Amino acid sequence: MPVIPAKAGIHEVGMQRHLLRFIEQIHFYQIYRCNKMGNKDLKIEDIGEFAFIRSIMDNCQFSSEKMIRGIGDDCAVIGPYENRVLLITTDVLVEDVHFIMGKILPEQLGQKAVAVNLSDIAAMGGKALCLFLSLAIPNTMSVETLKSIYRGIKNMCKRYRINLMGGDTSASPGGLMISVTAIGDANKTEVLYRDGARQGDGIYVTGNLGDSGAGLKLIRNSFSAPEPIASRLIEAHNIPVPYLEAGSMIARSGLASAMIDLSDGLVPDLHHICESSHTGARLNRDALPISKELSALAQINNFDPYELALSGGEDYKLLITVPEKNIASFEKIFQDSTPCPIYRVGEITKGKDLTILSHDGVEEQLDVRGFDHFLPI
Amino acid sequence: MPVIPAKAGIHEVGMQRHLLRFIEQIHFYQIYRCNKMGNKDLKIEDIGEFAFIRSIMDNCQFSSEKMIRGIGDDCAVIGPYENRVLLITTDVLVEDVHFIMGKILPEQLGQKAVAVNLSDIAAMGGKALCLFLSLAIPNTMSVETLKSIYRGIKNMCKRYRINLMGGDTSASPGGLMISVTAIGDANKTEVLYRDGARQGDGIYVTGNLGDSGAGLKLIRNSFSAPEPIASRLIEAHNIPVPYLEAGSMIARSGLASAMIDLSDGLVPDLHHICESSHTGARLNRDALPISKELSALAQINNFDPYELALSGGEDYKLLITVPEKNIASFEKIFQDSTPCPIYRVGEITKGKDLTILSHDGVEEQLDVRGFDHFLPI
Repeated sequence: MPVIPAKAGIHEVGMQRHLLRFIEQIHFYQIYRCNKMGNKDLKIEDIGEFAFIRSIMDNCQFSSEKMIRGIGDDCAVIGPYENRVLLITTDVLVEDVHFIMGKILPEQLGQKAVAVNLSDIAAMGGKALCLFLSLAIPNTMSVETLKSIYRGIKNMCKRYRINLMGGDTSASPGGLMISVTAIGDANKTEVLYRDGARQGDGIYVTGNLGDSGAGLKLIRNSFSAPEPIASRLIEAHNIPVPYLEAGSMIARSGLASAMIDLSDGLVPDLHHICESSHTGARLNRDALPISKELSALAQINNFDPYELALSGGEDYKLLITVPEKNIASFEKIFQDSTPCPIYRVGEITKGKDLTILSHDGVEEQLDVRGFDHFLPI
Repeated sequence: MPVIPAKAGIHEVGMQRHLLRFIEQIHFYQIYRCNKMGNKDLKIEDIGEFAFIRSIMDNCQFSSEKMIRGIGDDCAVIGPYENRVLLITTDVLVEDVHFIMGKILPEQLGQKAVAVNLSDIAAMGGKALCLFLSLAIPNTMSVETLKSIYRGIKNMCKRYRINLMGGDTSASPGGLMISVTAIGDANKTEVLYRDGARQGDGIYVTGNLGDSGAGLKLIRNSFSAPEPIASRLIEAHNIPVPYLEAGSMIARSGLASAMIDLSDGLVPDLHHICESSHTGARLNRDALPISKELSALAQINNFDPYELALSGGEDYKLLITVPEKNIASFEKIFQDSTPCPIYRVGEITKGKDLTILSHDGVEEQLDVRGFDHFLPI
C-alpha cells in the first residue's frame, strides 16, 4: 500500500522551524548521533522531544496512593474521593514557539491558553473546576497587553464558570511564557481514557477538521484568501473552543469506549488511541468533515484539503470511539441534545495499521507523524 | 520608633537586578507613572509585580463549586471530597531570574524546583501526592544536564513518595524555564491558613534563619568564607528542605492557628500572616535562631546576621502561630516526636505594626519590604 506523505511544515507553529518526522526516525537519528558524538555532548535538538519524553516517562511513580492514571493520557487522574476523581492537565505556551505576538491578539492568546487546557478536561469527560496560571513576563511588555491577556483568560473562566485560583509571576529575560494548569473532576466510573478502543468501534469527531492548520498557513502567509474566509480560518486557529459540554455528555452516557482531543492532528491523535488500545484504525476519506471555508481555500491555493484534515493540528475537536452496539444510542443523544455536530469518520480495526479508504475503494496506509519542537531542519 | 532599613540587594536572586521597596511606594510610583505617561505606554517594569498581582487578584471567581480558598495563601484549596480537601500550588523558576546555570548543579536545581512547591503543601499542613512539570528548554542544552535536572526531581519524588504524573515540554528560544505544580491533600478540618493568627499567639519557626540568604551572597561573591562554612550556607540556598513531616504533624495536632513557609523572608512572610489575620506582631531579636555558620560568616565579613535572618528569603522554614493556651502542648509534641527543632521568636499583637524587641528592651518598628522581580534599579 502506498504511503501518503503529509507535507513537511503543515503543522508548523510560530517562528520556530519544525520538522515532521516518523517517531521511529527520531530513534534512528538518536542512535546515529549517540554513535557520532558520544552521549555527553548530545544536545536536546539532537534527539527531539518524543525521544526525550519517552526517556523520562519511566520510573516516575513512587506511591500508589490516590494514583489512578499518570503520564500518557489527556489528563492525569487522582483519587478516588467519594465517587469522584480529580483530573489535572498542564500546558506551556512559549513566545516564538507556540505563538507570535502581533499575529494573535493578546486577548485571544489568553483565551487560547485556557481553551487548550479545558479541551484536555473535556477529552476525559470531566467538569472543569479551576485554573492555575504561571507567567514569565518580559520587563518591556506593556501593562495594556498583559491586561488584555488576562481579560481573555478571565472571559474564558467566566464563560465556563471556573475559578482562577492561583499561580506565579516572574520576570522573563527572554519572551513571554504562559503555563496553565487546569483541574477538573469527574465521576470515577465515567472517565474516558485513550486505551478503551476495541476492534469494530466507530470513530467520531465533533466538528470540521483542518481549519486551524489552514488558519496557521494564512497567518504565515503560505496561503492567501479573500474575506471572510481568511478571518474565519485564522479565528479557528487563534480561538479554539473546548468541547466541555459534549465531552461531559458523552462521559455521562456511558456509550463511548475512548476519547481524546485533537491537538496534534487527526492521524497522530488517532494513533495515540490505537497505540494505547493496541488496535489499528481505518478512516473514510469522504466522511472527513471539511468546512466550506477550507474547501474554498484549497481551491484558491490549489492544495488537497484532506491533507490538512488528516495532519493539521490544533483543531481541538473531540475524537471518540463507540462500540458497534452503542452507535444508534450514541448518535441519538446528539440528535436529541445538540451541543455540537458529530461525524463518523472511520472504525477501529485489529492489528496496528492506520489506513484511509478513498472514494474509489482503495485503502492506503497513513503516516503516523509526530510533531517535534526540538528537531532541527 | 526608628525604622530598621534592610540593605537593598539582600534578597537579590540570580543575575536580574532587583530592588526592595515598600509596597506602598510601588503604588505611589504607579500613580506617578500613570500621570506621566498615560496608561497605554505603561510597561511592567514601571509598576512592579505586587501592583500587577493586586490588580488582577479581583474578579477571578466565577463559581463557588468545590472552591474553598483561592489566591492569597500558600496553596489553593478545593473540595471537600469526603472529609478531604485538595491543595494546589504552582511555582515558576526562570533562568537568570531565579537561578544561574553554573551556580547551581542541575540535580540541585531539579531538587529545589520540587522542594519549594512541597514547602507550600507543608505550610498548609498537607500530604503531598503528585507533581506536574512544565519545561521550556533551550535547544542547545545538553541531554546530560537535562537528565541531571530530572534526576534531582525524581530523587525528591522518591524521597517524599510522590508521583510525577504529567507535564509539558517545549523548546525555549531564551533560557530554561521550569514550572512545577504540586498537588496534595489534607483533612478539611486540619488545614492551616494564613488568616488564623490572633493577638497573644506565640510565633514559632522550624529552623535557622538567614542561611539561604547568606548562601546567595556567597554564590554572588558578595561575601567570602572558608570551608566548610561556605559549602554549608550555599547548600542551604541551593537545596532547601520541605518541612512536610512537621507541617503535617502540626496540622494533625490542631494546636496551631496559622502557618506559612518562609519564602520571601521572615518579616515579609510574617507580614502576610498579620495582614490576612488583621494583627500586628513583635519579634524577639535574641530568640531568632542563627546557625554557627551564619554567625561565623557575619564575623568574617563584618555584617549583622540578624539582618539576613529578618529579610533574607528562601529559608523555607515553617512559621507557625500558636494560641497561648496550646503552647505547652505544642512544644511537647516537638519534644516527644522530633521532625525538626522549634524556636519561639515572638508573639502576635493587636494593631498593624511589626516590631522587634532588642536585648536592651528597645522596641523598634520593622520595614515590611516586598521583593520585586520587575522593578528597575
